[in-house]
Amino acid sequence: MNIDHLKICYIGGGSRNWAWVLMQDLAFEKEIAGTIELYDIKPEDARTNEIIGNALMAKHNGGLWKFHANPSLEDSLSGSDFVFVSILPGDFEEMAVDVHASEKYGIYQSVGDTAGVGGIIRALRTIPQFREIARSVKKYAPDAWVINYTNPMTICTRTLYREFSGIKAFGCCHEVFNTQKLLGAVLEEAGAAPVGSIKREDITTRVLGINHFTWIDKASWKNIDIFPYYKKFVDKYAESGFKGAKAATTFAAGGSGAIDPDETVRLRLFSSVERVKMDLFRRYGLIAAAGDRHLAEFCPHSWYMANATQAESWGFTLTPVSWRIANREKLIKMAKAYRDGTQTMAAVESGEEGLKILKALLGLGNMVTNVNTPNYGQMPDLPSQVVVETNASFSQNNIQPLVSQGLPADIRALVMPHVLAQEGIIEAVFEDDREKAFRVFSHDLAVQLLPLKDSRALFDEMCAKTLKS
Amino acid sequence: MNIDHLKICYIGGGSRNWAWVLMQDLAFEKEIAGTIELYDIKPEDARTNEIIGNALMAKHNGGLWKFHANPSLEDSLSGSDFVFVSILPGDFEEMAVDVHASEKYGIYQSVGDTAGVGGIIRALRTIPQFREIARSVKKYAPDAWVINYTNPMTICTRTLYREFSGIKAFGCCHEVFNTQKLLGAVLEEAGAAPVGSIKREDITTRVLGINHFTWIDKASWKNIDIFPYYKKFVDKYAESGFKGAKAATTFAAGGSGAIDPDETVRLRLFSSVERVKMDLFRRYGLIAAAGDRHLAEFCPHSWYMANATQAESWGFTLTPVSWRIANREKLIKMAKAYRDGTQTMAAVESGEEGLKILKALLGLGNMVTNVNTPNYGQMPDLPSQVVVETNASFSQNNIQPLVSQGLPADIRALVMPHVLAQEGIIEAVFEDDREKAFRVFSHDLAVQLLPLKDSRALFDEMCAKTLKS
Amino acid sequence: MNIDHLKICYIGGGSRNWAWVLMQDLAFEKEIAGTIELYDIKPEDARTNEIIGNALMAKHNGGLWKFHANPSLEDSLSGSDFVFVSILPGDFEEMAVDVHASEKYGIYQSVGDTAGVGGIIRALRTIPQFREIARSVKKYAPDAWVINYTNPMTICTRTLYREFSGIKAFGCCHEVFNTQKLLGAVLEEAGAAPVGSIKREDITTRVLGINHFTWIDKASWKNIDIFPYYKKFVDKYAESGFKGAKAATTFAAGGSGAIDPDETVRLRLFSSVERVKMDLFRRYGLIAAAGDRHLAEFCPHSWYMANATQAESWGFTLTPVSWRIANREKLIKMAKAYRDGTQTMAAVESGEEGLKILKALLGLGNMVTNVNTPNYGQMPDLPSQVVVETNASFSQNNIQPLVSQGLPADIRALVMPHVLAQEGIIEAVFEDDREKAFRVFSHDLAVQLLPLKDSRALFDEMCAKTLKS
Amino acid sequence: MNIDHLKICYIGGGSRNWAWVLMQDLAFEKEIAGTIELYDIKPEDARTNEIIGNALMAKHNGGLWKFHANPSLEDSLSGSDFVFVSILPGDFEEMAVDVHASEKYGIYQSVGDTAGVGGIIRALRTIPQFREIARSVKKYAPDAWVINYTNPMTICTRTLYREFSGIKAFGCCHEVFNTQKLLGAVLEEAGAAPVGSIKREDITTRVLGINHFTWIDKASWKNIDIFPYYKKFVDKYAESGFKGAKAATTFAAGGSGAIDPDETVRLRLFSSVERVKMDLFRRYGLIAAAGDRHLAEFCPHSWYMANATQAESWGFTLTPVSWRIANREKLIKMAKAYRDGTQTMAAVESGEEGLKILKALLGLGNMVTNVNTPNYGQMPDLPSQVVVETNASFSQNNIQPLVSQGLPADIRALVMPHVLAQEGIIEAVFEDDREKAFRVFSHDLAVQLLPLKDSRALFDEMCAKTLKS
Repeated sequence: MNIDHLKICYIGGGSRNWAWVLMQDLAFEKEIAGTIELYDIKPEDARTNEIIGNALMAKHNGGLWKFHANPSLEDSLSGSDFVFVSILPGDFEEMAVDVHASEKYGIYQSVGDTAGVGGIIRALRTIPQFREIARSVKKYAPDAWVINYTNPMTICTRTLYREFSGIKAFGCCHEVFNTQKLLGAVLEEAGAAPVGSIKREDITTRVLGINHFTWIDKASWKNIDIFPYYKKFVDKYAESGFKGAKAATTFAAGGSGAIDPDETVRLRLFSSVERVKMDLFRRYGLIAAAGDRHLAEFCPHSWYMANATQAESWGFTLTPVSWRIANREKLIKMAKAYRDGTQTMAAVESGEEGLKILKALLGLGNMVTNVNTPNYGQMPDLPSQVVVETNASFSQNNIQPLVSQGLPADIRALVMPHVLAQEGIIEAVFEDDREKAFRVFSHDLAVQLLPLKDSRALFDEMCAKTLKS
Repeated sequence: MNIDHLKICYIGGGSRNWAWVLMQDLAFEKEIAGTIELYDIKPEDARTNEIIGNALMAKHNGGLWKFHANPSLEDSLSGSDFVFVSILPGDFEEMAVDVHASEKYGIYQSVGDTAGVGGIIRALRTIPQFREIARSVKKYAPDAWVINYTNPMTICTRTLYREFSGIKAFGCCHEVFNTQKLLGAVLEEAGAAPVGSIKREDITTRVLGINHFTWIDKASWKNIDIFPYYKKFVDKYAESGFKGAKAATTFAAGGSGAIDPDETVRLRLFSSVERVKMDLFRRYGLIAAAGDRHLAEFCPHSWYMANATQAESWGFTLTPVSWRIANREKLIKMAKAYRDGTQTMAAVESGEEGLKILKALLGLGNMVTNVNTPNYGQMPDLPSQVVVETNASFSQNNIQPLVSQGLPADIRALVMPHVLAQEGIIEAVFEDDREKAFRVFSHDLAVQLLPLKDSRALFDEMCAKTLKS
Repeated sequence: MNIDHLKICYIGGGSRNWAWVLMQDLAFEKEIAGTIELYDIKPEDARTNEIIGNALMAKHNGGLWKFHANPSLEDSLSGSDFVFVSILPGDFEEMAVDVHASEKYGIYQSVGDTAGVGGIIRALRTIPQFREIARSVKKYAPDAWVINYTNPMTICTRTLYREFSGIKAFGCCHEVFNTQKLLGAVLEEAGAAPVGSIKREDITTRVLGINHFTWIDKASWKNIDIFPYYKKFVDKYAESGFKGAKAATTFAAGGSGAIDPDETVRLRLFSSVERVKMDLFRRYGLIAAAGDRHLAEFCPHSWYMANATQAESWGFTLTPVSWRIANREKLIKMAKAYRDGTQTMAAVESGEEGLKILKALLGLGNMVTNVNTPNYGQMPDLPSQVVVETNASFSQNNIQPLVSQGLPADIRALVMPHVLAQEGIIEAVFEDDREKAFRVFSHDLAVQLLPLKDSRALFDEMCAKTLKS
Repeated sequence: MNIDHLKICYIGGGSRNWAWVLMQDLAFEKEIAGTIELYDIKPEDARTNEIIGNALMAKHNGGLWKFHANPSLEDSLSGSDFVFVSILPGDFEEMAVDVHASEKYGIYQSVGDTAGVGGIIRALRTIPQFREIARSVKKYAPDAWVINYTNPMTICTRTLYREFSGIKAFGCCHEVFNTQKLLGAVLEEAGAAPVGSIKREDITTRVLGINHFTWIDKASWKNIDIFPYYKKFVDKYAESGFKGAKAATTFAAGGSGAIDPDETVRLRLFSSVERVKMDLFRRYGLIAAAGDRHLAEFCPHSWYMANATQAESWGFTLTPVSWRIANREKLIKMAKAYRDGTQTMAAVESGEEGLKILKALLGLGNMVTNVNTPNYGQMPDLPSQVVVETNASFSQNNIQPLVSQGLPADIRALVMPHVLAQEGIIEAVFEDDREKAFRVFSHDLAVQLLPLKDSRALFDEMCAKTLKS
């Protein structure tokens, strides 16, 4: 790979979220250069981003990077060194079904894009798209590194491997970073370091589990073991919640928009006060490493969000998709303004690691960070080949996951049903067996509460409204 | 082993259920001979059985077998060739707590001795007893074959191995036999053979899963594949239920009494019309191989017994422990009458396989049947070493489980949480960690429905009422 | 499967060995009936067997079975219920290279069809043929049971599965039977039963390992553990050898001819006095369950056949291929005589189990016997999926291997290099990588003795003389 | 762990090799401080090192580190944060037997401390010592990190875990470093960087295999993939050998002496011209990552050292133990001179990583390097729990091995017999079964060449001369 002439294919290149983050990070990047092929099923959005991106590059790094809207997937992929995948499977109208259709049966969701009824139905429409992507990568860029940002992360990444076993793919997620920020705040709050002095990157965590239900069983900063500090912190804040770690919410918006015109509302809808995380620590002894809105969806329904009021009492919100729809309109306007030059995109480094990982894979700085990859042995107590989230070491053209100690039996009992559900749903799609998909759906922690008749009605309704066939 | 002078230790030798079954089967056994050491924590019950057993032997086989009530476990075990374990962990008053304490929270149970809240609490008081048994076997009879009949079967058998890894133990259960009887009835009902002509032993089934949640993925009689017949049968009876297979209920009384003075009531309380079994077949495609009352307890709470009415609508009963208590009194009277000779025990072969297996292990006839053993490879998709139920081949001093094909992903998703819960509860007891036990309890399919506060209250109440410490 | 109209495809149907054995066994078979499609790359041999077979059937069982020479593989396979594969990969002239080419380098072989230089080179020409067979089965008879008799057994069977993972194939070999006969003789010799009274089928053995290097770690007859008897037997005969078990040699002729006109010579060339087997028992404590000529080839070269004299001193012969060539002529003459009716084939039951297994798979009698299948869990200490030899249970349309206890560490160390070599050679052929094949060859126990230059020369010579490309 | 008051126990504290290296490295270390308890079965050697070490510290870092000769193992261990183990199992007179006793049978060895007859017999006397160490660590310092430098590395480390499964131990070896130096030289030689400019630490290698038979399947420097360069290098030097990488030999002296009075002789006896390494690359395609003298001992005997002349023709020497004995005298004199102050030890950083790893475990700088640990999943194609050498990530109180891609089938076939032999020899000692040890010995690549009678004689002789009982 020629580091001065890299070719990067961005699938979902019309994105107003991750694509913009990438642009902003590239604005600071001068060690490597190349072209970003922006491919999107909405070519006009890609074209907009081409204009925005090139303007930003021109201003900040002398145009080392070119953005190029490319209507051909084949052409975008051919010869690529890297492929980013950041798409929205379906649209927010379909996501509204994922998230809200079940409410009439008493099933509420805080995010609805990973686990639970929303995650399952979203998977049903995402898996076929990722099979298609995997087939294209196999055909046009079999040696490229494929970096996935799309949810449901585990299922998307696993699908890539099931379709093309030789793919070099992994999934990136910033939820663990937010937890690392929290751990920094924990130390600062205890006086172990001046407030604001600890960098997230310097918090070392041993990560294990699956995406959005990830755990930390060892955490340190310099020569300090963070666990005793965290225990005291939890003792103090478990009931009241902790509101200090504002930084932790910066990208909690997920698939919806990095730059927000109405920050107050957004913060209320996406942030939490970490009470779920602290409650899990009190009971299980490990640090759950994702936002509370995600964690709650992996736990028994009665624990944190039997209803909207209960969620609120735990200090997090059931994010309505209506907000995402409204926010989309604002972002579209903003994109137009950037494109037409009536507004200028600021260049601020995101703190995301995508670019750093890419450089590590080029040989420009080894690093260890958390990532989603097939289980080759790093989680000895979970089934082989399922996609897990652990640390991995990145170096020139090489990823190697770090072997974890495995989950304690009780946490494993919480995690495993989700692993099996994810495998089941993928299997159902690969076998084109809608009935098997329903059976997996019927085992879901919340769906289990319903009589089978209602499970069936809900499943059929959601499929009818969100799936093409 | 000298087949004319065998020594068999019977732990729980005062039993008025399995011990009587064994006596009756031994009454017909003339190929081997020896002594049964009856050990029981209630020595007077063992003494009563000694008298009953010896009277039966004198009458039927010239006293080839001696029964001997032995108050010393050491003495009973030392030099034994076989050890039967058939105990009631605690008493029926404690079992009443296992089964009924949760009802005020809306959690109902049909049996309450294997899975669910009842199974878990029962396990908490059973595991220490089985650790003690394992230690005694290690000390006094390390080479003996240990045959367990006690529930929770999986947990009891697994405990034996965790405490003494060199033990030669396995667990026997007749639930699969009842399903085999049903399959015979299915063929007869379809006219494939005259009614009453098919012997259970001639139904070949491929068995896999865990005790009381066991599955059959292949069944045949002679050169006939039973699955197509079963499918038609289910089409016909899934709604109405099937009442024909009376034979199938003979031993459904579990830990409560083989000989029943009031058969009508008992049948109503213990039998089912197989609707759960048929419903599972319609959805999952495999034959569930246990009584409906057991199967229902392994499934999401809302499916079959969200409440007592629902259970009834599926054709099975939530057996009240009060019946077991009342029945106990009748059995005690009956035992007294047998002992005093005012009544004579009839000798009827039970159809149980305990004796046949024992003889196979002596080299007197190889056989293949279902059994509960650690997973050495026979269930490649379940964790290693957990106790599973599959077929095994028995021959002289040798058991070898048969490798199964593994469970389909969706059934595996139903089974695995129970496997993990069983492991977790054993781990909790071995680590003397009551909190871990509570966490496992809190993950239970039904307990999940409760707010954590209620889970805790229920757990604490049940522990307080049933556990010594 | 209609047991009155079975279709069996016999690949290698011109065989004058296994095909004749099958005919003779079918002569006694009246419970099932059908047609044997004889396919052979030498159609005239198949035609000869058709005539011989039909004459035999006409005489003995009223023509229940039809033999039909079929020049089309597609036609032979289509709709078959069973497929037998018993072919000679290449001809005896090529086998002469397998066996004798290495002698100039001091490498001698007793059989040369399984392990060692002969086995490896034979595998190189066999694997492509078995890939072709697997592809045809997949296309024309995917549900048929495929029973392989061809050597190298492990490699042939494994190839079938690698090419068509859904195949229902297994490999049968009688070497374990011969060892069971020997064990019967051991008991009779010790006076435990009258001479000639013990039937091989009644010797129960726990079998584990790989074909021709199979082991028995438990053996019994009725309630007698055979190991103590075998130990005394070895003490007595280890030095002198044991010549009594004539029966054990009946089919030791392997791929060369079941009916021998010059029995004295043949016996000398194929029999042994069991000294290798007894020596292995003395050192390793388990019973090696194959003929000495096979066992010796799996052991370090210096132990039993550093040269022809040493082999003789251990009581076995390095069978020259010249005998097979000469014998072939006699068999051809005999076939002609049978065909032309100038001689009549006698009907004698072989003691082979092929037909019994076939009937078990039809549901006509469950049985447990040893067989070669992929490792699904039955040999937990060998790699998954490699073909191993253990007991398996056969029933209607079902095989289930019996989980073994695993090999002791020291025997495993003897067996594993062969497992890895077999995997390596298959991989080399599937990847079309002759260099990898050479590297596997160069690791062989005997080839290791040679300087690399000589290994290379030998490999190249053998390939040139026996492989098409 | 208080980084200003660390307690380090050095078992083998009288060492004139690794102990001196450690002193010299500590001379430069000012970030952490503490006491080194020097324990040795020769207390006077520990006392000598105490004086030497303290003098060095006084001179270079103001005495931040104290050396203390401690005659009590209990006292040395109690409360230790780290334990170094660097002992000579037995003495050089016994090692002379390990290495040379087999020569009369035509078996030559280049090192004789890891694999082969020397490695096996050395293991027989080392394992009991390491069991004793493990028991002491369990008793007195169960939470300490134990860093082993003793050979046979794999067996010593595995023994620690088998005796005390909760131990936090790993083994360090510099052979991979030397290969990394060579790879730097390869790039420099090709003009990719100025000669002498590449630092070993900047060569990134993916390491897998077992100690002294370790492999590299991926190597890079900055954004350069080294494999194509190495291929050209091998094409150029495979026949002539490469003499340039002098640096690579600095510590090749193994257990014998870091500071050499007669460098010319030593270099001749310990260095190589990398021809074995290059030959293995030509054939297997991966980079063998140990010195040629070690590599040759893991390969078939005929390949590189059928005799002394052949070794020489491959450019390496069969190091005679007589040199070690003579060198020992020089080192004893030197120690005396250091102790008495008639000579002053120079402080030169060694390039070893022991101290760096120790600091990483204290939280003072995460790092990734190669290390020997139990196989938890990092080598999915080797048995679980055996000790393997791969990269691992070190951070505060945490080691996590990096999951490798597994060995290609042909290299695995070379490595596995050694893995099984190592396991077998450990098992034999733990079971106190000398016969099993002999069987493992008899399978050795070179011993296989001998008739069993000679194997036995050699084994008995070596045991008699080197083992206490």
